[in-house]
Amino acid sequence: VRGALEATFADRLIARARELGHPLCAGLDPDLALIPEPFRQGRMTPAAPATARAVGAFCAAFLERVEGRVAAVKPQSAFFEALGWRGVKVLAEVVADARARGLLVVLDAKRGDIGSSAAGYAAAYLAPSAPIRVDALTVNPWLGLDSLEPFLKACEAARSGLFVLTRTSNPGGRDFQELAPEAGEPVYHRVARALQPHAKRLAGETGWSGLGLVVGATTPDEARRVRDAAPTSLFLVPGYGAQGASAKEAVAGFVAGPGGRREGGLVNTARGLNFPEAAQGANASAWERAVDAALDRATSELAEAVAG
Amino acid sequence: VRGALEATFADRLIARARELGHPLCAGLDPDLALIPEPFRQGRMTPAAPATARAVGAFCAAFLERVEGRVAAVKPQSAFFEALGWRGVKVLAEVVADARARGLLVVLDAKRGDIGSSAAGYAAAYLAPSAPIRVDALTVNPWLGLDSLEPFLKACEAARSGLFVLTRTSNPGGRDFQELAPEAGEPVYHRVARALQPHAKRLAGETGWSGLGLVVGATTPDEARRVRDAAPTSLFLVPGYGAQGASAKEAVAGFVAGPGGRREGGLVNTARGLNFPEAAQGANASAWERAVDAALDRATSELAEAVAG
Repeated sequence: VRGALEATFADRLIARARELGHPLCAGLDPDLALIPEPFRQGRMTPAAPATARAVGAFCAAFLERVEGRVAAVKPQSAFFEALGWRGVKVLAEVVADARARGLLVVLDAKRGDIGSSAAGYAAAYLAPSAPIRVDALTVNPWLGLDSLEPFLKACEAARSGLFVLTRTSNPGGRDFQELAPEAGEPVYHRVARALQPHAKRLAGETGWSGLGLVVGATTPDEARRVRDAAPTSLFLVPGYGAQGASAKEAVAGFVAGPGGRREGGLVNTARGLNFPEAAQGANASAWERAVDAALDRATSELAEAVAG
Repeated sequence: VRGALEATFADRLIARARELGHPLCAGLDPDLALIPEPFRQGRMTPAAPATARAVGAFCAAFLERVEGRVAAVKPQSAFFEALGWRGVKVLAEVVADARARGLLVVLDAKRGDIGSSAAGYAAAYLAPSAPIRVDALTVNPWLGLDSLEPFLKACEAARSGLFVLTRTSNPGGRDFQELAPEAGEPVYHRVARALQPHAKRLAGETGWSGLGLVVGATTPDEARRVRDAAPTSLFLVPGYGAQGASAKEAVAGFVAGPGGRREGGLVNTARGLNFPEAAQGANASAWERAVDAALDRATSELAEAVAG
C-alpha cells in the first residue's frame, strides 16, 4: 500500500526545491489597495462581486508568472477574507488553480484553536475532502501541544504539512516569543523543542519533516539555534526582500543536502513579486515583465545563497 | 459629535448583562457531526449546498431560542470555514441575523498576523464596512503587541472589541502560557500586563474596556491574578459547563458592580446549549424545549453566582 501513497509534503517540497536549485516561495498578498491598475474594476468596494473578480484575475495572472519557477506559493488568507465569502470563494479557486499548475500551496492562515474547533480548521484546509485543500497550513502554537494535535492527525492522514509560528520577523515578535523562562531558553526555542517528539509523524523518505516551523529571516543566529533544536523540521522563512533580510541571512537555518546545496525549507517573499515597483501604474504586460524580472532576481539570489 | 457615536462594545455589553442579571454568552458551535436530526439534510457532505442550508437553519433556530435571553452569542468560525465558502456565507448571514435580533456577536476566530495582514483581518470582521461585521473578535497575542495594533485601531474607529487569548482552559494551555520567565511571572500574565497601556483606548462610560482577555474558567485563582493586572478589561471565560467549571469558578475574575452584582465580562458555554442531551434524536420542538431548559439552568446558575 505504501507505494500507492502520495509522497509526504516534506518530500514533495524538497524534491521540487532540488530540481529548481532554490527554495523560493512566492507569497500572494492581494491587498486591495495595491492591486495594479490593469486588474482593478470599479471602486473596489470590499464586498462587491466585481472586486472579487478583479482579485481573482490578478491571482491567476500571478500564478501564470510563477508556474514552473517556484516550488510553492503562499496565499495570505486575510486578504481573501477581507472580501467576505466571495473572497473565500476566490481563495478556493486560486488554491485549486495553483495545485493544478503543479505548485505546492502553503496557506498562510495562522489558525489555532482547541479540540473540535482545531479539528474544524483541519477539515477546512488539510483533510483530503477539505473544501479548500492545501498542501500545508501555518498554525499558531500559543494554545499548546494539544491544540496542534488535530492538525497533526489531519496531516498524517492527508500527507500534508504544517508550519508552526515559532520566531516571527516583526519587531513585536520579541514581546512574548523571546521571554526566557528556564536556563535562558526563550519561549520560541521551547516551542521548537516541544514539537520534536512529533516530527517523525510527518517525516518522509528524505528525512525532512512536514512538521515545519516559521523562523524569521531577520534573525539568522536564532535560525541556526532553532535548527539545532529541530534538525528535521522544514523552515518557512518570511522576511526576505521587502522586510529587509538578505538571501544569505534567509537560508541561515538551512543545511547541506546530498548534492552539496543547502536545503531545509522555503524562503518567502510576496510584495516584491506581487507589486514590483517597476510596474507602477503600467499596463498588464509591463506588470508581467516586472514580475518576471523580480522572479529572476529572487531566484538567482537564493540559488547563489544555497550554493555558497 | 460624541453624542452621535454608538456606545463602545464594553458599555453595550455591560448594559445588557446588567439588564439580564447574568453574563451568559451563548456559544454557537455547529459541528457537522452533532447537528441534531431534525435539521440534517442528506449525507451532510461538508462542501454541499444542502449542508450549508442545514447549518444555517440550525443556527437561525438557535438564535431564536437565545434572543432576549443572553447578552451575546459567540459563533466559532472553524465550523463555518469547514464548509468552505458556502459556510462563510452562512456565517455572514448568522452574524447579521444575530445583530438584527439585538444580540452582540463575538466572533471566535482567534486571528493573529502582522502589519497589512492583521489589517486585512480587521477589515474582514471589525471595520464598519466589514463584509462580516461583528461586535468583538478573539485574537491571538503570540506575534506581539505590534500585531495587535491594526485590530486596536479598527476597534477604536468602529467602537468594537477584542478578546486576547491570555490563559486558555485546555490542558495544553500550560505548555507555553505558564512558563515563568521573570520573577515568577507567567507569560500569560505578562500578556495581560503588556496590554494595559492600551486598555483606555477601548474604554467606555462604565470604565470597562473592550480590550478584553480570554481567561479560562478552569483556573479561578489565575483569573483573580489576571484581574489584578487588568482591572478594566472585560473577560471572556470559556470552560463553563461542558468543560467542567462551575458558575462560581467561572466568575472568579468578576468584581462588584454599581448594583452589587459581580460583573466584568462574559461566561461562555456552547455544547450544552447547542446540543442538549435531552434532545438526542428528537424532533425539532423537543430540541427547542431542551435548549430552553439548558438556557434556564445556565442563566439561573450564573445569576446566582454573580449575586452571591
